[in-house]
Amino acid sequence: MSQKIAGPEIERLVQLLARLPGLGPRSARKAALALLKRREELLLPLAGAIRAAADKLVECEVCGNVDTLTPCTICRDERRDRSLIVVVEEVGDLWALERAGVVKARYHVLGGHLSPLDGVGPEKLNIARLVERAKGSEVSEILLALNATVEGQSTAHYLTGELAPTGVVVSRLAQGVPVGGELDYLDEGTLAAAIKARKRV
Amino acid sequence: MSQKIAGPEIERLVQLLARLPGLGPRSARKAALALLKRREELLLPLAGAIRAAADKLVECEVCGNVDTLTPCTICRDERRDRSLIVVVEEVGDLWALERAGVVKARYHVLGGHLSPLDGVGPEKLNIARLVERAKGSEVSEILLALNATVEGQSTAHYLTGELAPTGVVVSRLAQGVPVGGELDYLDEGTLAAAIKARKRV
Repeated sequence: MSQKIAGPEIERLVQLLARLPGLGPRSARKAALALLKRREELLLPLAGAIRAAADKLVECEVCGNVDTLTPCTICRDERRDRSLIVVVEEVGDLWALERAGVVKARYHVLGGHLSPLDGVGPEKLNIARLVERAKGSEVSEILLALNATVEGQSTAHYLTGELAPTGVVVSRLAQGVPVGGELDYLDEGTLAAAIKARKRV
Repeated sequence: MSQKIAGPEIERLVQLLARLPGLGPRSARKAALALLKRREELLLPLAGAIRAAADKLVECEVCGNVDTLTPCTICRDERRDRSLIVVVEEVGDLWALERAGVVKARYHVLGGHLSPLDGVGPEKLNIARLVERAKGSEVSEILLALNATVEGQSTAHYLTGELAPTGVVVSRLAQGVPVGGELDYLDEGTLAAAIKARKRV
């Protein structure tokens, strides 16, 4: 909408909300409206929460996760399996795995994948610290939970080479048919991987 | 997710973002992550924008719109047709009409609709000021752009009665087939309205 229909402070709020993933220009306006209508219960608390998060934001010195304390909440969690480190590209991948609740281990966040064309070499990623962690006596396995993309897989290949001298077991996620997936809609690569990795029943 | 995977400040941010319309628990986490990853460009500006909007938020003394100044941006706009007032239930309806850009008039926000069962009588709505405005010499028409629901239409009926003594023309939105709508998918009420209000071509 080019036309201004509200004061500059509100328009700016809408613009910033529209930059959040999942909110387009239209839903940003709806979100702004919800904030404005619920000043006491939502607008002021959200302002405070954003400020508090911004003030305390820090990168975990152990795993590269983003949190408000370092070592992060996950690295501090004593109930997690300390023999396994799950390597992910981004914090969002870590959150996705935690949401699924399928692994109770610690993580290592690379901060992206190798991408020579974009100038992202190994030194730009959080790899040196991973190799250091792999040398620790408590770690026995490193699971490379990287994206099943060309970049993710070439990063996994590079990491496998870097981790070989440490002697830890290096594993990767299984590839195959997603749960609930219909064969009719799957791409050839997934079908090929699922057939290659077929299991006896 | 019951499990805590980040510090309390981040969890609180996710919880508050999840209360925005259009953001579920999952997309709230994505949005929080986007904020955390872009501290300088997004997180801090958004905190400032929310604070600024919260500080300056005010209800327009003329029309009941929410803005950061009163009279609001729309009421101040000299290029708008001052003879027409468009009556809406909520600020969101005003924004929807502005987004469509189909009318260049001023508005009047009722703040809801009549709902006796919920204890919302005429005195709870911004009606007295509407009648005052209708008496103004510059106003010649009042368009009731209320929802096509039972409550919206009974509110419109009530307003028509209240506005009758002022002598202004009272109009309502046309009802019929939505643009792009397929007859096959329309409800009986819409079809009946469309047939009743049919026009010669």
